[in-house]
Amino acid sequence: MLHLIDLNDWPLQDVTDILNLAKNIMQSPDDYMDVCRGKIMASLFYEPSTRTQMSFQAAMLRLGGQVIGFDNPVNSSISKGENLKDTIKIVSGYTDILVVRNPVEGSAKAASVFSNCPVINAGDGGHLHPTQTLLDLFTLLEEKGTLNGLKIGFCGDLKNGRTVHSLIKAMTRYQGNQFYLISTEALAIPYYIKEIIDNANCTYTEVRSLEEVIPELDILYMTRIQKERFSSEQEYNEQKKVYILDKCKMNKAKLGLKVLHPLPRVDEIAIEVDDDPRAVYFKQAVYGMYVRMALVMSMIRQEKIPDVSIDGEYRHVPCTNPYCITQQERYLPGLFEKNGDMLTCKYCDQRRLI
Amino acid sequence: MLHLIDLNDWPLQDVTDILNLAKNIMQSPDDYMDVCRGKIMASLFYEPSTRTQMSFQAAMLRLGGQVIGFDNPVNSSISKGENLKDTIKIVSGYTDILVVRNPVEGSAKAASVFSNCPVINAGDGGHLHPTQTLLDLFTLLEEKGTLNGLKIGFCGDLKNGRTVHSLIKAMTRYQGNQFYLISTEALAIPYYIKEIIDNANCTYTEVRSLEEVIPELDILYMTRIQKERFSSEQEYNEQKKVYILDKCKMNKAKLGLKVLHPLPRVDEIAIEVDDDPRAVYFKQAVYGMYVRMALVMSMIRQEKIPDVSIDGEYRHVPCTNPYCITQQERYLPGLFEKNGDMLTCKYCDQRRLI
Amino acid sequence: MLHLIDLNDWPLQDVTDILNLAKNIMQSPDDYMDVCRGKIMASLFYEPSTRTQMSFQAAMLRLGGQVIGFDNPVNSSISKGENLKDTIKIVSGYTDILVVRNPVEGSAKAASVFSNCPVINAGDGGHLHPTQTLLDLFTLLEEKGTLNGLKIGFCGDLKNGRTVHSLIKAMTRYQGNQFYLISTEALAIPYYIKEIIDNANCTYTEVRSLEEVIPELDILYMTRIQKERFSSEQEYNEQKKVYILDKCKMNKAKLGLKVLHPLPRVDEIAIEVDDDPRAVYFKQAVYGMYVRMALVMSMIRQEKIPDVSIDGEYRHVPCTNPYCITQQERYLPGLFEKNGDMLTCKYCDQRRLI
Repeated sequence: MLHLIDLNDWPLQDVTDILNLAKNIMQSPDDYMDVCRGKIMASLFYEPSTRTQMSFQAAMLRLGGQVIGFDNPVNSSISKGENLKDTIKIVSGYTDILVVRNPVEGSAKAASVFSNCPVINAGDGGHLHPTQTLLDLFTLLEEKGTLNGLKIGFCGDLKNGRTVHSLIKAMTRYQGNQFYLISTEALAIPYYIKEIIDNANCTYTEVRSLEEVIPELDILYMTRIQKERFSSEQEYNEQKKVYILDKCKMNKAKLGLKVLHPLPRVDEIAIEVDDDPRAVYFKQAVYGMYVRMALVMSMIRQEKIPDVSIDGEYRHVPCTNPYCITQQERYLPGLFEKNGDMLTCKYCDQRRLI
Repeated sequence: MLHLIDLNDWPLQDVTDILNLAKNIMQSPDDYMDVCRGKIMASLFYEPSTRTQMSFQAAMLRLGGQVIGFDNPVNSSISKGENLKDTIKIVSGYTDILVVRNPVEGSAKAASVFSNCPVINAGDGGHLHPTQTLLDLFTLLEEKGTLNGLKIGFCGDLKNGRTVHSLIKAMTRYQGNQFYLISTEALAIPYYIKEIIDNANCTYTEVRSLEEVIPELDILYMTRIQKERFSSEQEYNEQKKVYILDKCKMNKAKLGLKVLHPLPRVDEIAIEVDDDPRAVYFKQAVYGMYVRMALVMSMIRQEKIPDVSIDGEYRHVPCTNPYCITQQERYLPGLFEKNGDMLTCKYCDQRRLI
Repeated sequence: MLHLIDLNDWPLQDVTDILNLAKNIMQSPDDYMDVCRGKIMASLFYEPSTRTQMSFQAAMLRLGGQVIGFDNPVNSSISKGENLKDTIKIVSGYTDILVVRNPVEGSAKAASVFSNCPVINAGDGGHLHPTQTLLDLFTLLEEKGTLNGLKIGFCGDLKNGRTVHSLIKAMTRYQGNQFYLISTEALAIPYYIKEIIDNANCTYTEVRSLEEVIPELDILYMTRIQKERFSSEQEYNEQKKVYILDKCKMNKAKLGLKVLHPLPRVDEIAIEVDDDPRAVYFKQAVYGMYVRMALVMSMIRQEKIPDVSIDGEYRHVPCTNPYCITQQERYLPGLFEKNGDMLTCKYCDQRRLI
């Protein structure tokens, strides 16, 4: 539990511990208002994400800690002419924990290689965003009382949504969950996610319409449908209504349904749904603060981290993903996990043959 | 006193309480250095206003509280593709008090409709800026010892200056104040402000020259004269000297005169005046911090606020002010106060016939 | 020790006290975690310098203090239409210490004229950056155990590097130091620095190659070589290899050598050198935080500062340096030190005949 780069790297028990701690903090926040006194978090946002940043900041401040950092690559002299390594080496010398958001895949892993303190991945491009998944799990647990045996619908752009992929992966680690995958054909879930579901002995159903499946669901996880993902504006206009959640569709759902959304929404949930007690997406955002409090508190108490010893075997092997951080920061050693004749890049998870 | 949107909504006793508390804090700041411990202010600045923001931040930090927020609409992902409601719902879930600055009229009121914690209006376009008025009142009280029976000159652009309008309105709630309105004809005070003065049984005098009236004044409230308000550059150059305060004009004023300015100044007060002990505009800015401490401390101690119950009668009536927040955020319910056959918009104070 | 504008203004004993205090803080940081409780630093960065700003912020927060400020001249309303004087008057009324970075020479001195609290110069254009020099001294003392009798190489752009000039000046105040000045002819050290070395009875050697002199050195202070300083791209490409520090050159150096760099680096130190224990530039950055803690703590405890009384003799004499702050902010009084028939500008150190 040195760093949080990929939630799947963590044993399930560690995930459970964070969720339990978040619950305790939420119930008795005053008991935790000094646990990070004298500690500093660096919030290094190489791309703006105000909501995520404010959630982390509020979390650290509510623990009695302090925050420094930057939020704007354009104005920051950091991002001009300085490599990631130097920034991480310096800033991790000033602070006790790093929260890193960077649009390049694998950048959080790269930061963890050089950091003198724990690193939390707050989003590395289209790759991973593990604290979102943690807060989604907490929301399910809090609202449904269990992470097992749930009928969970995912609606929207299931092809490109890392949030969806990550939550499905996490939920397959629990028992008896059933997934309803609601999208257009063009935005359907990737094959490898279906494989993961199959391998976990969970089940899934792919459907094209929200209306037909909503009566079944315990959970409906809505996501943004981006116009530019459709083949034409006409297609977008025809299809989007099928995927917009409104009062009329809510009327067909169970009383116990809970509607989640990672936010921000555009128009995939009508404003009229906000007043429905089954809409929990604003609560979900607040839960996120408590989950991040639990995470920061647990990670910051660890001993100072020695530099990762980088074994030599694959250090000169290049990653084949053109968006991998190793393509931009050329001094980074190759790091791969070998599996048969496949190498998986430890930065960005791209796979290649040896 | 749930929110501070418009100072005139507050009973005079509440205003007095804030001014008294500000005085106590200024005299014994150490007594208050922990009263907001464990509390967080969100400083949501949809347009930059560094001075106001720093004043609020310093105020909260001096109370032992903490601050998160944003200051830059361009870099903030918040302002892209997310409506005001969602931002307010989420951020007010992280924090204990919101300070909102937004260039759209009525936006602070709109924020208060959805916030889970108290909202302070730190300026909503040309509409209101109540904490400026509070600090102006505090300055008058501190420097003159009373808010009654004062001869107050306002000089500069009296047509467009919300600061001036707001302070006049506030001063008409006290007894025996006389107003001297010093401006060009084109920049004269609006008619409705003169009505307010008349209705309050106060008196006013409109003059075109600062020099002729300065010997009378107890207070001179200077404001910026913006070049672009004049009909031509020539007219500007001819007129501006009449409205610039310099040593020569100061020599004609009473020893007890106090010169105020909301700052920033451009060149309407000559630098040479700064060393005159009657110039209190820098002190006025510092008073502002103490007033904001009093305000934040008083408001934050309130109970959590339930969602405003929005009555249905006028919720579908549109506001006729094209700059009203309800024109931009179309989901906002119409909120009006009925007075005879007039409806006054509760967001932006625009009036319309039923 | 009211302000820190130019390190050479300070008695050597004050410098020694700061270095000793920094050492104590580094050894027992917990003893200092509350010494600035209730105090606020304003971090006024008129040009972005994220690393310096984060170092100051971390320093203040680790002392239990708080920070407000701005980091971005473009977005800040402060820098639009408000003179330096007004900003300093107002902000120093909110806070207990100012850290000012401004690209205009002499601006830190100008700030100190109007500030109600101590001012630290965090860089005023090409003029001075005294906290960098303090942290360089601390690094030498920490890594070599002494500031006397050292053989110090400076490599890179010695003509334009204020960091180099400043550290040489500071090191000539100690005994028996020898300077090795490694640069191209076009980027050679200015004559007046050589005069300072001579006057202090220290010695220097100018060389064109790093390789020939590296075996002699106790300290190697590397600096950036900016492409645009060379007469042509061809010349740059030919010369730069001579000044790049790599493993091969490190192999010729003493075991006791210490390599410093003010950071950020571009490519004048090869990444492969980072793992050499003699490379201390990352430690140097962390030392900087402790030095700034010592500085802030020492300066903030002073009494409130009265306005500097500006004597009249030279107040109408203009400075001849076109980049001096007095050229931009025309209300600033001329301040000069007279020496024979020479006047030295107290803002920017430009000299002129009477």
